Amino acid sequence: MRYKLVGNRVVKVDAREKALGSALYIDDIVLPGMLYGKILRSPYAHARIVHIDISKALKAPGVKAVVTAKDLPGKGGGLVGPFIKDEPIFAVDKVRYVGEPVAAVAATDLAAADAAASLIHVEYEELPALFDPVEAMREGAPLIHDNVKGYFAVFDARRGGNVCSHTTFFEGDVERGFQESHVIVEETLRTPMQYQAYIEPIGAIAQFDGAGRVTVWSNTQGIFVTQDRICESLKIPMSKIRVIAPKIGGGFGGKIETTVQPHCVALAQKTGGRPVKIVLPREEDISNTRPRHPAIMSWKMGLKKDGTILASQMSAIFDSGAYADDGPGVVAVGAITARGPYRIRNIRMDSYCVYTNKVKTGAMRGFGNTQTTYSRECMLDIAARAVGMDPLELRMKNAIEPGDKSVGGQTLHSVGFKESLTAASEGLGWNRPKETKYRGRGMAGINHISGLLTVGSVVRLNEDGTFTIQCGAMDIGQGSDTVLVQIVAEEMGVPMDDVRLASGDTDATPYTWATTANRITYTGGNSVLLAARDVKRQMRDLAAQMLDTENLETKDKKIFAKGNPDKALTYHDLGKVSVWVKGGPLIGKSNFMVEEPTLDPRCAIGHPFGTPFSAWIFGTQAAEVEVDPDTGEVRVLKLVAAHDVGQAINVDGVEGQIEGGVVQGLGYGLCEAVLFDKGRITNPNLTDYKIPPAADVPEITPIIIETHDQTGPFGAKGIGEAALMGAAPAVANAIFDAIGVRVTELPMTAEKVLKAIQEKRAREAKAS
Amino acid sequence: MRYKLVGNRVVKVDAREKALGSALYIDDIVLPGMLYGKILRSPYAHARIVHIDISKALKAPGVKAVVTAKDLPGKGGGLVGPFIKDEPIFAVDKVRYVGEPVAAVAATDLAAADAAASLIHVEYEELPALFDPVEAMREGAPLIHDNVKGYFAVFDARRGGNVCSHTTFFEGDVERGFQESHVIVEETLRTPMQYQAYIEPIGAIAQFDGAGRVTVWSNTQGIFVTQDRICESLKIPMSKIRVIAPKIGGGFGGKIETTVQPHCVALAQKTGGRPVKIVLPREEDISNTRPRHPAIMSWKMGLKKDGTILASQMSAIFDSGAYADDGPGVVAVGAITARGPYRIRNIRMDSYCVYTNKVKTGAMRGFGNTQTTYSRECMLDIAARAVGMDPLELRMKNAIEPGDKSVGGQTLHSVGFKESLTAASEGLGWNRPKETKYRGRGMAGINHISGLLTVGSVVRLNEDGTFTIQCGAMDIGQGSDTVLVQIVAEEMGVPMDDVRLASGDTDATPYTWATTANRITYTGGNSVLLAARDVKRQMRDLAAQMLDTENLETKDKKIFAKGNPDKALTYHDLGKVSVWVKGGPLIGKSNFMVEEPTLDPRCAIGHPFGTPFSAWIFGTQAAEVEVDPDTGEVRVLKLVAAHDVGQAINVDGVEGQIEGGVVQGLGYGLCEAVLFDKGRITNPNLTDYKIPPAADVPEITPIIIETHDQTGPFGAKGIGEAALMGAAPAVANAIFDAIGVRVTELPMTAEKVLKAIQEKRAREAKAS
Repeated sequence: MRYKLVGNRVVKVDAREKALGSALYIDDIVLPGMLYGKILRSPYAHARIVHIDISKALKAPGVKAVVTAKDLPGKGGGLVGPFIKDEPIFAVDKVRYVGEPVAAVAATDLAAADAAASLIHVEYEELPALFDPVEAMREGAPLIHDNVKGYFAVFDARRGGNVCSHTTFFEGDVERGFQESHVIVEETLRTPMQYQAYIEPIGAIAQFDGAGRVTVWSNTQGIFVTQDRICESLKIPMSKIRVIAPKIGGGFGGKIETTVQPHCVALAQKTGGRPVKIVLPREEDISNTRPRHPAIMSWKMGLKKDGTILASQMSAIFDSGAYADDGPGVVAVGAITARGPYRIRNIRMDSYCVYTNKVKTGAMRGFGNTQTTYSRECMLDIAARAVGMDPLELRMKNAIEPGDKSVGGQTLHSVGFKESLTAASEGLGWNRPKETKYRGRGMAGINHISGLLTVGSVVRLNEDGTFTIQCGAMDIGQGSDTVLVQIVAEEMGVPMDDVRLASGDTDATPYTWATTANRITYTGGNSVLLAARDVKRQMRDLAAQMLDTENLETKDKKIFAKGNPDKALTYHDLGKVSVWVKGGPLIGKSNFMVEEPTLDPRCAIGHPFGTPFSAWIFGTQAAEVEVDPDTGEVRVLKLVAAHDVGQAINVDGVEGQIEGGVVQGLGYGLCEAVLFDKGRITNPNLTDYKIPPAADVPEITPIIIETHDQTGPFGAKGIGEAALMGAAPAVANAIFDAIGVRVTELPMTAEKVLKAIQEKRAREAKAS
Repeated sequence: MRYKLVGNRVVKVDAREKALGSALYIDDIVLPGMLYGKILRSPYAHARIVHIDISKALKAPGVKAVVTAKDLPGKGGGLVGPFIKDEPIFAVDKVRYVGEPVAAVAATDLAAADAAASLIHVEYEELPALFDPVEAMREGAPLIHDNVKGYFAVFDARRGGNVCSHTTFFEGDVERGFQESHVIVEETLRTPMQYQAYIEPIGAIAQFDGAGRVTVWSNTQGIFVTQDRICESLKIPMSKIRVIAPKIGGGFGGKIETTVQPHCVALAQKTGGRPVKIVLPREEDISNTRPRHPAIMSWKMGLKKDGTILASQMSAIFDSGAYADDGPGVVAVGAITARGPYRIRNIRMDSYCVYTNKVKTGAMRGFGNTQTTYSRECMLDIAARAVGMDPLELRMKNAIEPGDKSVGGQTLHSVGFKESLTAASEGLGWNRPKETKYRGRGMAGINHISGLLTVGSVVRLNEDGTFTIQCGAMDIGQGSDTVLVQIVAEEMGVPMDDVRLASGDTDATPYTWATTANRITYTGGNSVLLAARDVKRQMRDLAAQMLDTENLETKDKKIFAKGNPDKALTYHDLGKVSVWVKGGPLIGKSNFMVEEPTLDPRCAIGHPFGTPFSAWIFGTQAAEVEVDPDTGEVRVLKLVAAHDVGQAINVDGVEGQIEGGVVQGLGYGLCEAVLFDKGRITNPNLTDYKIPPAADVPEITPIIIETHDQTGPFGAKGIGEAALMGAAPAVANAIFDAIGVRVTELPMTAEKVLKAIQEKRAREAKAS
């Protein structure tokens, strides 16, 4: 064991309080005099607002505040959106999806708020609505937005009409690649809208103090994102907004951007100091959390007879719903990751983000890549069969290796993809004879980004020789608090109990962007590690000065003259002396933001960031299924997930991420989809929106591959998103292997599989 | 006006919430499931604890926890004390004063806690008690402590017996000075125990989370001091202790060290996660807040005929009560400041801190100097009359000037003492004919320290171009939050609304020591100013890089190319760009700790700090009184207080400090004293302990003298403590001027004044 803590299985720092039920979540918080908010939402997918009458609601019992767009600065507030500022907090002049906030009420209890909201009279004039992105792209389609503007110039290049963004990544000469290919395969694949389905719905409490400052408690993936969006939408300076996050019951991307927080603040602003709480009922959560973009992906792949992939092309349409939200980023990441973990010289990956009159979609675990990984890995299976190769061999032949480049030209050093192919296939018994006729095996290769933007940290030496980390990176249940504490404890050579993590409070921590992009272990870990090293250096300098020697050793919370453990200063001594005598407390500080080479502008149109991603993560998931030929029911028997994480920090945590990701990926592949009837969600609850129940979860074997990323903290990279991506395509390929049919649209329900079997039988009957 | 904000009158940043009543103080905080704690206290001044029986209390209705010393780690917990670790949280084996905590109970309501506490049976064996420090110093006196140990070696040099510390400052040759003097005056003066009498009693709430971490809410003058003392006493690592301070209703030194906080934590630890609140009833507050040390000061002063003071000697005995607490510091500061703002070459200032069986005394506004200033300024008056000089002239003749040295050898640059003498005497009309017979005028010169130890700060640029300060310096009502915001806003050229101050939370801020020693404007102000300059430099560097020029100007929240305001970046641009593109958010950081020359070891025995004080502050207070010769009643007609503060930051704040200080000083001089009967306080409430009522407050004229201290933020120094020191001696000297009697023991009640008048009349009658 190279490390004392890193790479071990450690108990999560919040396990005990969660197990005891003493951890506070947003709905556990009750403040004195608290009011309850209710948001009135649009019943129409697309309509002009003719008039809003709040007079009856204002007079209703218990009502303390009613807010509509007109109450906000500039009669509508600022438009928000991480890439394109196109969304008002409350609908202004028109509504664009069923469920869009139109007004809100705060009352002394929830029933009173519900009752009062129903007394708000809104007169609408219905407009023609668009539900299909392909239709929305057609010339002459009604415009959902007239005039919107992106903050980042690169996203401002709208294609016009209802296309809110279009990103292309290209390398080499894809046309020539196809010309030189012996075999060309083509297919169009479709994926559904997947809901994040975290256990805890979104909620917030807002309260103004007498000085006009607001404190917002919210289960957000990014306290600073929440602070910024409230500032933008309500024109309150950030200096007057404090955001505090309690414990969080999952996010999966749905809690990055604001949802109810500005509405809560707008209500609280009218109550003269009373706190207002809104926790979304599940059906409102589904329509507001911005689920995963549905996508239609048309692929063309060209190969030599020996299986070398010469050209790969995708054109994808992502359904953004009514607002852009993270869409421009999602489609860009979908395009940049679409090449996959393969050496392919000629690529062209186009992706469009298109407005429709449905709920807005956005970030969900995988962020565009989940869609393109599914479709690409199906294509590889199709291609392997077209050239008569084993799908494992085809992947192995084209697999990238250390020294290869990512799309965009970043040279990759930490690449465990081939190892993951080997481990996953061996773990599953890829070549083992099948036990029954209708069993099949499939696999999927995965590549994703890990780390993005900045995390600032402070590590300070306390007076008693313990340490306090200040870091705003949110643990949303994935275990990052534990990882950050582990990293600092490892670096300082102290037990984890000696390290406190202060987080979840914009007043308490340096800036960090949100918990996204597999970035907390990597970017956050690097950040706290650098800050720890900074304070360590200061401790050493102080010890050198006090012990009058540069020749020092550190052990058991002591720094001592080499070979003379009696000439020593304990961490406790250093803590006391620094504060009382020597120039002030020792405080390490860091801002971690990897500077990578800018993407070659020639290979991307509308590329998303000035710098790409810090580290790339790889993996392979392989599944064995059994298909019932009479019902179409698919039973997943086993799933092996081998993931290159650089270095596991907390092994239990990594395995937990893999297992959870696989289950969510199986849901994506087999049963999950947000369904609509003319823009209205028809399954807005966890009874009708089906996530895999425990009984359907197969044996999952997580395998950790460690490649030691030289840029990661102790060599670590991320895992969270990658863990979800492989299950759906692996199962899709296994189904084909089992029964010879390919369902090209997720989820692969028994009905769809049975239909494909019946069509295949009909074709075979016709042919015979 | 040199500055936009500094030197103005600005509204305090918390004025609105305080005026509206929305500011939360400790007793406003109610947590779900909260229990109420009651401390059982010793009824004896000195007794052995034979046995404690808690069995009945444990069975009492509503009781959830009972704690005694035996429940603490090592059967007593760690001993605490800022200088000498001599005090247990709960009495171990014996009690040393009436009111010492012996046990504590937490119950579902306060009445249940009170009832249960009375069911704890403690068997005592009374021991001989010492109430007089002079008696306690006698050989053979019973020992109050057997064996205690100081953290700082210099304070470990106990003199044995009941003397817990002894400090001497000497310069020159005091014996030779007396030999060369034409006139020698001697007198012994006495001061009482003064209670801080803040409006809000001390309180705390403690709650453990499931992970064994405790959060403590408390109205403390030092969140990090509280954190450290809980760590020391209960052996909980600081990494598991978070301290949060709500708004605070005054402190005056009584809220620096811990009082109820460890007791609250000890109870909370036994409740399995329920919060426990203790807010002290007034009578317990008085016995626990550590009032001002009573002192007996014997002076000898030698002068030439022309009024030049050649030698000054003081021997002072300070009554520490049962524990050392801040005593060693108090007596040291009393000695180091006893020379006063005068050029005296030969001095010897001795001060003893002596244990007695009374409530422990400690830090109170003035910290030892209040006592010695009173007695020294009386001596100057006596001396002036002895050499036949006007007291103003005598002071002016000996007054220190810029370039002179402090005791200890620090060269002083910012010295406005002479200006203050002039301003105060002119303001009062020193030489104006007296309007009635029994009127008199007196004055007092003041010198005190300003600034001590360290304050760490962070100033970060928010995404929207506003700023957040993180600084742990506590505003206890004196207005320092406003000053810190003003300083940063001034430096950054933004309105105060653009600056947020995050404070009062050990999780949120870098380390700082407590609100003491007139240090927040000076030390804290320097700290935030340095951090602001740090972020300003980073903003300029980023702007230079982006605008491609070093030739920059800053105005109206923009940095632009000199002479070309269109080539500009707003603070908002810089906030966004730093976070999203350029290496991370801009965060300025500082630890301010002035490194002054170490005291010459030859001039001090048992000196308190490796470095003395950063800045010295000066002032003069002059009073006019009218004495009723038949009742001895003293009416203060007018008090002029001229104070050298270097630079006023918030003029309203400085004037408020002066006015409040004068009133507290008048209380010290005329009516305040904690009274005892065999160690039991006989006036433990604000009815019987009399602070000056509004009707007795005279016309107060604050005069601000600005000398621009080159080491202070914008030239500022402190004011808080100095404001209190002059009133008592000025009034004492005015009484003598009015009626020719000197009461040598504070407070100068009508009874004492009348007695002195009667004695004088008797003497005169005898002589005639």
